Amino acid sequence: MERKDYLKEPVKHIKIDKALTVDELIRQFKNSGSFGAGKLATACDIYEKMLKDPECTIFLALSGAIIPAGMRSLVTDLIRKKMVDVIVTTGACMVHDAIEAIGGHHYKGTWSVNDKELYKYHIFRIYDIYVPEEDYVKLDYVFSEIYDEIAKEKKGQTLSSDEFAFEIGKRLKDPNSILRVAYEENVPIFIPAVRDSEFGFIHWMHASQNNQKNPLVVDAFKDVPTICGICSKSPKNGMIVLGGGVPRNTIQSSAIASKKGLDYAVVVTMDRPETGGLSGSTLEETVSWGKMKGEADHMMVIGDVLMVFPILVASAIERLGEDFKRSPLTQKINKGAEENGR
Amino acid sequence: MERKDYLKEPVKHIKIDKALTVDELIRQFKNSGSFGAGKLATACDIYEKMLKDPECTIFLALSGAIIPAGMRSLVTDLIRKKMVDVIVTTGACMVHDAIEAIGGHHYKGTWSVNDKELYKYHIFRIYDIYVPEEDYVKLDYVFSEIYDEIAKEKKGQTLSSDEFAFEIGKRLKDPNSILRVAYEENVPIFIPAVRDSEFGFIHWMHASQNNQKNPLVVDAFKDVPTICGICSKSPKNGMIVLGGGVPRNTIQSSAIASKKGLDYAVVVTMDRPETGGLSGSTLEETVSWGKMKGEADHMMVIGDVLMVFPILVASAIERLGEDFKRSPLTQKINKGAEENGR
Amino acid sequence: MERKDYLKEPVKHIKIDKALTVDELIRQFKNSGSFGAGKLATACDIYEKMLKDPECTIFLALSGAIIPAGMRSLVTDLIRKKMVDVIVTTGACMVHDAIEAIGGHHYKGTWSVNDKELYKYHIFRIYDIYVPEEDYVKLDYVFSEIYDEIAKEKKGQTLSSDEFAFEIGKRLKDPNSILRVAYEENVPIFIPAVRDSEFGFIHWMHASQNNQKNPLVVDAFKDVPTICGICSKSPKNGMIVLGGGVPRNTIQSSAIASKKGLDYAVVVTMDRPETGGLSGSTLEETVSWGKMKGEADHMMVIGDVLMVFPILVASAIERLGEDFKRSPLTQKINKGAEENGR
Amino acid sequence: MERKDYLKEPVKHIKIDKALTVDELIRQFKNSGSFGAGKLATACDIYEKMLKDPECTIFLALSGAIIPAGMRSLVTDLIRKKMVDVIVTTGACMVHDAIEAIGGHHYKGTWSVNDKELYKYHIFRIYDIYVPEEDYVKLDYVFSEIYDEIAKEKKGQTLSSDEFAFEIGKRLKDPNSILRVAYEENVPIFIPAVRDSEFGFIHWMHASQNNQKNPLVVDAFKDVPTICGICSKSPKNGMIVLGGGVPRNTIQSSAIASKKGLDYAVVVTMDRPETGGLSGSTLEETVSWGKMKGEADHMMVIGDVLMVFPILVASAIERLGEDFKRSPLTQKINKGAEENGR
Repeated sequence: MERKDYLKEPVKHIKIDKALTVDELIRQFKNSGSFGAGKLATACDIYEKMLKDPECTIFLALSGAIIPAGMRSLVTDLIRKKMVDVIVTTGACMVHDAIEAIGGHHYKGTWSVNDKELYKYHIFRIYDIYVPEEDYVKLDYVFSEIYDEIAKEKKGQTLSSDEFAFEIGKRLKDPNSILRVAYEENVPIFIPAVRDSEFGFIHWMHASQNNQKNPLVVDAFKDVPTICGICSKSPKNGMIVLGGGVPRNTIQSSAIASKKGLDYAVVVTMDRPETGGLSGSTLEETVSWGKMKGEADHMMVIGDVLMVFPILVASAIERLGEDFKRSPLTQKINKGAEENGR
Repeated sequence: MERKDYLKEPVKHIKIDKALTVDELIRQFKNSGSFGAGKLATACDIYEKMLKDPECTIFLALSGAIIPAGMRSLVTDLIRKKMVDVIVTTGACMVHDAIEAIGGHHYKGTWSVNDKELYKYHIFRIYDIYVPEEDYVKLDYVFSEIYDEIAKEKKGQTLSSDEFAFEIGKRLKDPNSILRVAYEENVPIFIPAVRDSEFGFIHWMHASQNNQKNPLVVDAFKDVPTICGICSKSPKNGMIVLGGGVPRNTIQSSAIASKKGLDYAVVVTMDRPETGGLSGSTLEETVSWGKMKGEADHMMVIGDVLMVFPILVASAIERLGEDFKRSPLTQKINKGAEENGR
Repeated sequence: MERKDYLKEPVKHIKIDKALTVDELIRQFKNSGSFGAGKLATACDIYEKMLKDPECTIFLALSGAIIPAGMRSLVTDLIRKKMVDVIVTTGACMVHDAIEAIGGHHYKGTWSVNDKELYKYHIFRIYDIYVPEEDYVKLDYVFSEIYDEIAKEKKGQTLSSDEFAFEIGKRLKDPNSILRVAYEENVPIFIPAVRDSEFGFIHWMHASQNNQKNPLVVDAFKDVPTICGICSKSPKNGMIVLGGGVPRNTIQSSAIASKKGLDYAVVVTMDRPETGGLSGSTLEETVSWGKMKGEADHMMVIGDVLMVFPILVASAIERLGEDFKRSPLTQKINKGAEENGR
Repeated sequence: MERKDYLKEPVKHIKIDKALTVDELIRQFKNSGSFGAGKLATACDIYEKMLKDPECTIFLALSGAIIPAGMRSLVTDLIRKKMVDVIVTTGACMVHDAIEAIGGHHYKGTWSVNDKELYKYHIFRIYDIYVPEEDYVKLDYVFSEIYDEIAKEKKGQTLSSDEFAFEIGKRLKDPNSILRVAYEENVPIFIPAVRDSEFGFIHWMHASQNNQKNPLVVDAFKDVPTICGICSKSPKNGMIVLGGGVPRNTIQSSAIASKKGLDYAVVVTMDRPETGGLSGSTLEETVSWGKMKGEADHMMVIGDVLMVFPILVASAIERLGEDFKRSPLTQKINKGAEENGR
């Protein structure tokens, strides 16, 4: 590279002299092209590309306090609008969804509070959000029955984590539930660590009540071929990671196991790369493994998911416009899978 | 507090079903009311309050790579629109402004680059931004002459850091320069660590050329009574801190020295509170010192300034509308100061 | 609290005038009593208390790059010395252990490297560590056979994640393997997200080879009653969390599900509390849930696990001395469990 | 580079089977060679190299809560043992030193406290440390007199920041004061942002009392040639940065202004590189500017200074042994400077 190649495009200064739409602001961020502003603008571009690439399957990784923080409708709307094809998430995220699906609520609070008093009052805290214990108790009872029902129906069969999510979704009524809407729209939800959540303890309750006669069995490994199959059958694969942990790792591992490598990747996190956790590891590193292609469009946005994710969605919706239609490949792939007895 | 007081306001889920303006999005963030979304929404509310409070003087602390990252016009426009009354910044920030004022540029680059090659090419890197060395060389020569000129004019007198900024601004032509516009609009710019920047080394050059006969003297302590005087004469004081370091500390110290305590405070940073640096310290901590009032409206947004600051500005501009007029108190205070021979 | 109660104990300055042992340094940190030094000293005290409390069961949560980073022997020695009673970890951690158990290695590298070249060379990168692909390929083949063997032996039975770990450990020869040593010492290893790792993809291979006739089945939920049972039967419970993620969440959830609440807790992490992830959430927050008792000894050390963990271990070993013997409760609990057909 | 070059040195696992000295632990960290452990071990090696390189001048940058956190004696001992040649620090750090020099104390506290109560009690909080207001009031009075004294003695002359520190040190009695010991040992202390601290407000007090007749004048720019001169005259230059901010920037800028470029660099910080602040910027970036040589030994340790700094010192003291003597170049350089009327 010659000297002049480094000095090609001057930063243009962001200009805000009237009310801007979110995407107008993002286009100003692109003028800046640097630091957080540049990263976020590039992430918006990559998501737009994924959406407009007819060969791309879009995996969304959800972790952390997305639902308590008020991002639930964003996810259900993305599913309904076919702006995401596969979800990989934690047990906790789906528990949070389920809590609201059965009528519970998350309440605005503060992080600076006396937790001993909250304990006394049977109020659980998630940073600056409160959940009353009774919502969890209700969940335990409602879901223990749902487990019984599924166990009876699936007698003798084991379920994969996505089948578990599908069966739950089928039995929830709330039209704003991620589990429900994903069921309706046939978007698979993988929960590789499903046991690590209230779902695990509900299982204990359910299995005890049944005296172990007919418990629901989720086969820990059974979702592996399914998610890898999706990667494998899709010409291209893209991921959007909100947070990190198991959901990010599962998508990346599926990309390598299916010998595809991701074509697009956006990660939003505040975890650091230097301490050895997967969540903060760079996307560059994934290239060495073959998890992401060397030439993939990718961006790691260093920021609070609960600030960045809505911006990403707002920009995409504005860019696509009302007439945009997308035909996800997974619908065909899934259909094939179903006909084969899914 | 009773139990029900903790469970008053459920989180409302963010809804994005069409193109939103930035402030419409911020109002959705307020529905969430939690984590980064809630913090940012509250920060926007506080800035709006500051702007609408006729008794409040607004201090803006600038540090880091604000200018190279494309935020220069945001600052000049805030000054012109009288949406900020006092600026406290670093030498480096004003050097970045000056570089562009004399025709230099910051260029879009990447953080993943061979720095030895950049060195060979005389290109300086600021994370993902490049600046050619010749812009700094030009700055050295142009400013050395400006120093001479000021020194002659102010013969025998010492300057405070804000007078230094004022004299520089007077001599710059660029209508987009923060130093220039602040001069025109009579907004003081305090640079408490002015020496810690290219300005320091230009001084060395200037002083050597003059054989020390008539050097420019900036009195390190001379701006203390000026900034404390502004705090003291203003019924209320608010600060917006972008980054941290000396600018944040200076504003907070002025608030305590003037025995006022801040009434409003917004801090945007990614520094952590646990390691003993001022930049990441909580606003709660400032209450113990009297730097901020116990009942002050305050928010610390954990995020990248280069993403958050434009949102804060866009929201404020949208909320205030075109007809909004603000009469900063400092204009009177400064006038008084000038008549007393500033 | 009166004023004088706040001003009781002055910070004593750390003094290093000769070679110090690690614990002598930690005692100096205690003199400081503040920031990272104070937190680390307190963490050492808490671990010592756990070890000396005959009623306490010690849970160790492992995540991230502990093994590649050279902490493997620390863990095996803790197991052998009965300084940890239960391990909860990720699939990836145990894969890293297994890679070395079958003769593979992790190599010292650098984080600043061309990942496309590494990909070309079939070398995987974990921050500044390299692993050759052939070690993974070997793992796939060796473990696929181990899976077959276990499946045959356990025909028709499902395994819990700890039984899976136990069966693997039984079949490994390497005396430095965590899986092996835990098997020998009867220390249970829970891997709640076992599927999210190479273990998942080996399962795919194994199941395909068998034409699904007789695959190994790990029941995702089956370890819940086991780990909760340990908490429940132990008068007191303490945890040491290295990193976060599923292992931390699982221990905390077990503490609440067993209605015990942790009595001791040390967390080492660099994740932040503000962004909604469990890994960075404060220990104060866990009190509201009943995951930790309000009066528990607890400390969250903000630091790199790969720097802090060896210090914690070195301090404990030095404090306990050579004659220290500990009789973990779990050995009895486990024995009871085994007699009941574990 | 060929494939085998990447796979040369396997990670050796850390082994702790008895009480270790701090440097024995660091050597185990070197066996790991990765993540925080590897970074810290390399940092210790670099500091050792600096100390043993007879051509190297060692600059120490201090910022943040070093003194309140109990690191004061570490610094004074480094000065006395000639293990550091030049100090660059903040006004706040030297205020903290001065507070203790006049008999004040910093007290152990907690970060989780009611700051409004502390305010009521006139207790200032620095994260988990408390300082009573009366210590600051005492400082104001004692130092106002010291200012008067210096002003009288230096009548008509301006002081540089290091001369200011020197004059203060001369007047303090406390043998544990950094300012005092640096004065005794002729180690210059540069305080480029001296005004941004209680020193600034004491100046206001002092200047008001004198009716501006004979105030102490610190020339903001006067220390530039002095520190650049040290860099320039020293064959090699190394820096150890604890924290960041102005002290780090000043050393780096001096290295470039003197056209030398650093030969050794250790930075300890938890600030991030992605947000545009100098404190978190990588050492790689400094190479592009010429602040550090491309081939310099350098390491950025991501960790809490208040944990890492004592380890760095303990390791160095253990490695050097009791008989080690070092003849700093600055002593000659300074002597030369003094003879020329410093």
